[in-house]
Amino acid sequence: MPLIDIDRVSAIVREVGQRVVLPRWRNLGERDVVEKSGPGDLVTVADKAAEEALTPALSALVAGSVVVGEEAVHADPTRRGLFDGDGPVWVIDPIDGTRSFICGLPVWGTLIGLMRSGEPAMGLMNQPYTGEMFIGDGGRAWLKGPRGRSDLQASQCKTLSDAYLMTTDPRLFRDGDSPAYARVESAVRLARYGTDCYAYAMLASGQVDLVIETGLKPYDIVALIPIIEGAGGVVTTWEGASAKDGGRIVAAATPELHEQALKLLRS
Amino acid sequence: MPLIDIDRVSAIVREVGQRVVLPRWRNLGERDVVEKSGPGDLVTVADKAAEEALTPALSALVAGSVVVGEEAVHADPTRRGLFDGDGPVWVIDPIDGTRSFICGLPVWGTLIGLMRSGEPAMGLMNQPYTGEMFIGDGGRAWLKGPRGRSDLQASQCKTLSDAYLMTTDPRLFRDGDSPAYARVESAVRLARYGTDCYAYAMLASGQVDLVIETGLKPYDIVALIPIIEGAGGVVTTWEGASAKDGGRIVAAATPELHEQALKLLRS
Repeated sequence: MPLIDIDRVSAIVREVGQRVVLPRWRNLGERDVVEKSGPGDLVTVADKAAEEALTPALSALVAGSVVVGEEAVHADPTRRGLFDGDGPVWVIDPIDGTRSFICGLPVWGTLIGLMRSGEPAMGLMNQPYTGEMFIGDGGRAWLKGPRGRSDLQASQCKTLSDAYLMTTDPRLFRDGDSPAYARVESAVRLARYGTDCYAYAMLASGQVDLVIETGLKPYDIVALIPIIEGAGGVVTTWEGASAKDGGRIVAAATPELHEQALKLLRS
Repeated sequence: MPLIDIDRVSAIVREVGQRVVLPRWRNLGERDVVEKSGPGDLVTVADKAAEEALTPALSALVAGSVVVGEEAVHADPTRRGLFDGDGPVWVIDPIDGTRSFICGLPVWGTLIGLMRSGEPAMGLMNQPYTGEMFIGDGGRAWLKGPRGRSDLQASQCKTLSDAYLMTTDPRLFRDGDSPAYARVESAVRLARYGTDCYAYAMLASGQVDLVIETGLKPYDIVALIPIIEGAGGVVTTWEGASAKDGGRIVAAATPELHEQALKLLRS
């Protein structure tokens, strides 16, 4: 018996997306967007309301599970410690791509990951406006979209000069990371900014071949790991370690491309 | 009697979007993407097929009209001259945001503008995946979306430090334009990259307050002018001249914000 019925998870996320998130999208008042740690680090009423709705529902779904959500961790940093437990841990970002959300762009998503024995076991990204749900169950990955279900398959791209690259914002790379990223950017065929979680969904969909980011938190990436890996892609830190703790991340469609990117990032 | 029945234009664009464009989106083969002027300047089979379908249909809709489309002008630059005629001129970009299209992001659009007596008289942007059509008829502007029709209204933002800014790609600003853009970027609340025509649609929707770009062609902007202005926004070149010829463009939600941006761009 699997630990978790993915249909029940997706039903919860879909319901919260329709009832809590979408009504607030493109409908934010002046006081609905506030700064967290500083200028540019913004959170909306939709982030908070979605996490409040998701947390008890997910917790009830798996006996003994705990929920580590971005907004709860922000309010109480000690909750971050729950992430390291052996038991089932939900790792959620109610709205990944808050800046896209604020600007009306449909490339944000709700991320729901489940860790078992310290490893990402299942992941889901929901984009309720386009009606796209990207899912990885620890084996395969698929898209439930407006035209039904289809398997996700990363591209076969093995060469940097053929690759399409995405990153959320090149300004996020600091100090030595900025020239490292720039080396890769200048080696690829096309680089596209402004993508957040949607970049990894497009990698799993075979639309782009490489995603490079920095400063990710566990809730920015845990849900995406089973989607990327289930589609045949590779995702690690820039050091080649597990991506589950976040940090500097590189995801690639193939091991060959991943290795070439790592080499340039380190050189 | 109005020169043009917008319902007939939107029916043509919707049909071409469904029949010609969408089937090719997220479904491009290796040979379906080719370079035009050089690396990074890409065109797809969808751009070409959409323009080929739109051109005769629009031409037949208005007696004596000519069509100036991005791909036709690329193939025969003398067609650019048709743009300056006094008669009705359709100015179209079959897929604005080709890089978004190639990467699977739903923030590209089909742009259809109509010039009369040398001025933009009507404009339309169609995003067939999200089912959004942004329309300006020379007076008002509205969105035909998945939840019906709604009027477009730009925000009331009058202060740079409150403003959300969008640009397609900061790498496009060259020489003196780069620091000029950077001055504005450092003065706003939030800057978001990777948007193409969708940025102007979000400005007209009241989601963002400022869009700054460079290197636009007439077919990148003519269709968007009636949408922006119909929503109460202001759009000109960095010199304050009409935006219809393209070039360096600044669009703002209010005249006050527009003036502040122009001042920083010029200082």
